[in-house]
Amino acid sequence: MDPVPPALARLAEELERLPGIGRRTAERLAHHLLRVPPETALALAEAIRAAREHVRPCSRCRAPAERDPCPICSDPTRDDGLLLVVENARDLAAIEVGRVWSGRYLVLGARLAPHDGDAAGDLPLEALLARAAVGVREVVLATNPDVEGDGTALLLAETLRGRGVKVSRLARGLPAGGQIEHQSASVLGEALEGRRVLS
Amino acid sequence: MDPVPPALARLAEELERLPGIGRRTAERLAHHLLRVPPETALALAEAIRAAREHVRPCSRCRAPAERDPCPICSDPTRDDGLLLVVENARDLAAIEVGRVWSGRYLVLGARLAPHDGDAAGDLPLEALLARAAVGVREVVLATNPDVEGDGTALLLAETLRGRGVKVSRLARGLPAGGQIEHQSASVLGEALEGRRVLS
Repeated sequence: MDPVPPALARLAEELERLPGIGRRTAERLAHHLLRVPPETALALAEAIRAAREHVRPCSRCRAPAERDPCPICSDPTRDDGLLLVVENARDLAAIEVGRVWSGRYLVLGARLAPHDGDAAGDLPLEALLARAAVGVREVVLATNPDVEGDGTALLLAETLRGRGVKVSRLARGLPAGGQIEHQSASVLGEALEGRRVLS
Repeated sequence: MDPVPPALARLAEELERLPGIGRRTAERLAHHLLRVPPETALALAEAIRAAREHVRPCSRCRAPAERDPCPICSDPTRDDGLLLVVENARDLAAIEVGRVWSGRYLVLGARLAPHDGDAAGDLPLEALLARAAVGVREVVLATNPDVEGDGTALLLAETLRGRGVKVSRLARGLPAGGQIEHQSASVLGEALEGRRVLS
C-alpha cells in the first residue's frame, strides 16, 4: 500500500518538474506545504496564477512585464540609440539594479547551445534586426562570458554585420572586488590579454 | 524604476518562503514558471490547492492522508500491539517503502530541539499515551539518530515509563552497504559499543 496520499504525491511530482529540484527536495517541499498554515501554501498557488495571468513579454524588449510596452521601454529619458542585448530577464534586472545602463534592452530568451540541439532558431534574430534598424547607433552584446554566451555573441555580431550599426561586447577581465589569487586561469588569461596601457 | 514586474516579484517572494530556497533560486524558479507552458505552471498551483484541500492528518497516526483513518490505520492485517513512532511522515514513507514494519505508526510532527526554543510542548505526548494505552505491547522509538532525535526519544521513553509497555529504539551501527573507511567516528564508535558476540 502506498503510504503517500495521491494529492501529496502529485504535488511532489509537480515540484520535481522545477529546475534544480530533485525527488527528495520535492518531497520535502510538498510536506512543508502541507505543514504551513493553509494561507501560506495558497499564497504560493495564487502567486503562480497571478504571475501567469498578469505578466507577458514586452513587445519591444521581450522582458516580462505587466504593461506593454514595459516601464523601461516607455521611459522617455532613455537613449533609443543604445541597445543592450541580454540572454535573459534576470541579467537585465541585475544591470538595472546596478544603474549602469541608460539605453534600451532586448532580451534574447535563448542562447546558442549546440550541445543541447541547434538553438540558433530560438534566437530572435528578426527582432534584433528590426530593433537595430530604427535609430540604433550601438548594439552592446551582453551575453554571458562562457562558451555558449561567446557563441551567441558571435552569431549576433555576424547577423548585424553590414547594417551600419556599431556592435560591442562587455569587457572581460578581473571582477571588481575579486582577488587575483582566487581567479581561474581563464579569468587571469583574459585579464592579461586585455590589459590596458596606462602611460 | 524596478525592472521586475510586481506579480513576478511576488511569486519570487512566495517561493523564497520555501525551506532551502534562497533569493536567487526563488528568482530563477519564478522566471522558469513564466517561461514554461501555462498549463505546466498552473498544474503546480492546482496541485498545491488540491493537496491542501484533500490531505489531512489521520486522526489515529497523524500521517497526511486523504481518508480518515488512513489506509495503514484501517488495514486489518497490521499488528495493533506494535506502535512505531517516527518524527515525520517522510520517515514513515521510507519505512513503508522498505516493507520492514507490519505494526502501526504514530507521527510526532515535531522533535525536541531546545536550541530552536523549547519544543517539548509541540510533541503529541497525550496522543502517544492514548495510543499506548490500548493494547500496545511495544512502542518502537524510530526518531533520527542525531542529538535532537536522541533527546526526543529520551523524553518519550520517560513519558511512557511505568505504563506497562515495552519501549525500544532502532539499532545503531554500520549502515548496511556502507564502507567502514567512509564512516564517521560517531558511527564507528556506536558500532563498536553495540558490537554483538557471535560465538
